[in-house]
Amino acid sequence: MSETGSVDQYLKEVKTAIDAYILDFLPREHNRVEVQCLYDMIRDYPQRSGKRLRPALCLLICEAFGGNPKDVFNTAAALELLQNWLLIHDDIEDGSDLRRGKPCLHQKYGTPLAINAGDALHCKMWEMLHQNAEILGHEIAFQILAEFTQLSNQVVEGQHIELSWIGNNRWNLTENDYWEMCVQKTAWYTCITPCRLGALAAGASRADADRFIEIGMNLGVAFQIQDDVLNLIGEVGQYGKEIGGDISEGKRTLVLIHLFDSCTEAEAERVIEIMAKHREDKRQADVEEVLSFMEKYKSIAYAQERSKFLVVKACTQFNQRFAHLPNSGAKSLFLPLVHFVIEREY
Amino acid sequence: MSETGSVDQYLKEVKTAIDAYILDFLPREHNRVEVQCLYDMIRDYPQRSGKRLRPALCLLICEAFGGNPKDVFNTAAALELLQNWLLIHDDIEDGSDLRRGKPCLHQKYGTPLAINAGDALHCKMWEMLHQNAEILGHEIAFQILAEFTQLSNQVVEGQHIELSWIGNNRWNLTENDYWEMCVQKTAWYTCITPCRLGALAAGASRADADRFIEIGMNLGVAFQIQDDVLNLIGEVGQYGKEIGGDISEGKRTLVLIHLFDSCTEAEAERVIEIMAKHREDKRQADVEEVLSFMEKYKSIAYAQERSKFLVVKACTQFNQRFAHLPNSGAKSLFLPLVHFVIEREY
Repeated sequence: MSETGSVDQYLKEVKTAIDAYILDFLPREHNRVEVQCLYDMIRDYPQRSGKRLRPALCLLICEAFGGNPKDVFNTAAALELLQNWLLIHDDIEDGSDLRRGKPCLHQKYGTPLAINAGDALHCKMWEMLHQNAEILGHEIAFQILAEFTQLSNQVVEGQHIELSWIGNNRWNLTENDYWEMCVQKTAWYTCITPCRLGALAAGASRADADRFIEIGMNLGVAFQIQDDVLNLIGEVGQYGKEIGGDISEGKRTLVLIHLFDSCTEAEAERVIEIMAKHREDKRQADVEEVLSFMEKYKSIAYAQERSKFLVVKACTQFNQRFAHLPNSGAKSLFLPLVHFVIEREY
Repeated sequence: MSETGSVDQYLKEVKTAIDAYILDFLPREHNRVEVQCLYDMIRDYPQRSGKRLRPALCLLICEAFGGNPKDVFNTAAALELLQNWLLIHDDIEDGSDLRRGKPCLHQKYGTPLAINAGDALHCKMWEMLHQNAEILGHEIAFQILAEFTQLSNQVVEGQHIELSWIGNNRWNLTENDYWEMCVQKTAWYTCITPCRLGALAAGASRADADRFIEIGMNLGVAFQIQDDVLNLIGEVGQYGKEIGGDISEGKRTLVLIHLFDSCTEAEAERVIEIMAKHREDKRQADVEEVLSFMEKYKSIAYAQERSKFLVVKACTQFNQRFAHLPNSGAKSLFLPLVHFVIEREY
């Protein structure tokens, strides 16, 4: 089987197992019709398509470090719950329309109920993590909780940074600003913590777990850049969100920062004029005009190159720092899985 | 000192100690200006006025059961964090203007940042609860986490029920519907769990802790009814929210249910016509018209009587079920504290 085939197969297996576990954990039926609606809402995003990349990374690293993936399975599922409650609230905060190819939860049920459903799922994530007390014992359970606390603090700060750039109409951003925002908003919960949890569950040293901070930063930012790129050039059927949605939402991406660094002052003014419009005032022609500037200055190609560079860097770091790990199927799958991050189309 | 004086003094002492503890726990300064703004946001509601009733109940019951309130102090503070993140999100969900006499967080910073700040504070609540591992040991810490999980599940269901009545324009509600919604939305986190946690921290049996379920239901619903009443007839300076705000927000209260049970069909149609208007379309004259119907049918007085009846019932149950507890300053303060719930003007 090709490496890509192996990655596809692995992700598929993880998705099947994680989805079943989560849907078994979440409440299903209630005789009060209103509460039944809440249950339907919290089960909605977990039933949609998606990669389940975070649990996959966590389980794979556990196995690569010689651990039993079963020990970290509950924790890996909690990473997916995290992703789901974050998405419910992110979609409201960004004013998004589509998620995983279907209307966002707040578009289906209204913002008030969707905020509350996100909170409900958030509580369920901690409830799932507390089950680790029975599965792994109290001490390890608290270590895992500490990892989740660390990543939670990162993700809300990263999210605040991005939202405040949009809210405060800030445009003079550097690549370094983008890097720092992405590390907090994306890298911690998408890569750093999943890998750390997998390694720690396998009994890895804290020093080994800490080695994933730098690797996960490179990988997480690469993931976010690829997400930004797909948002501009992806296929809506595969990508699952509205194409050009980031332009409508006024998102500050690496593509945009490169464009500002490359274009004339007059062009920058025009781009800002469009980007700063309220979402509902932006038309398709506006989005296409910004896209044409991005193409003119090869900003999308630049971001793709940057993303590729970061993944290669992460792979080199992984090979160097974990040369002592014995070769295994799991270890050999890490690099293709990581490359999937930038080769994916969804 | 009069009993009311004692209660005031006790609440003041609790407030001072809890506020200091929370503000010491929450992050204060960050060199990135955007993150500093997030820190300011999560420290905002905890610095506003308010009763700190939930920690007070928890600490008092712990003492009444012969425990050391210091053991449950961290947990009591987490109850206050819960209240604060719930309020941030509730205020968005309800479209409120004022909280504790000042503009709601989303009115100051916009909805996207406020949703995220609520999430940040929510995470901080669990982080504070995880500290119980060091304070009380792993086993008790997990018992407390289980109590918080139970109440979280209740509160999001109760909140969903109330919001869906408004969202689905439902009016044919009974007193029993209101009761069930209030038990879930209010009673668990305001009364049942605070008392349970206080008792359990003092080494009370699970049977004793369970006795607080019924007492706390009566007390919690009484608290909510009084809140609904103050929303209609309170002083904005003391109560801290816009008077008549529940009418603007379309809230289903006991007062309203009593009105529908009492008025003519034509009057009910008129009230629904007003109540069902979008918030921004409701004028002061609309609010006053609904209020005049409530006065005509003595619906506010009915709710006040009902609230009083429930508090007396809760007190009787407390005296009967905990007759075996030795008399103490703490035990004797419970009844006046509980009466404060319906006598308060804020």
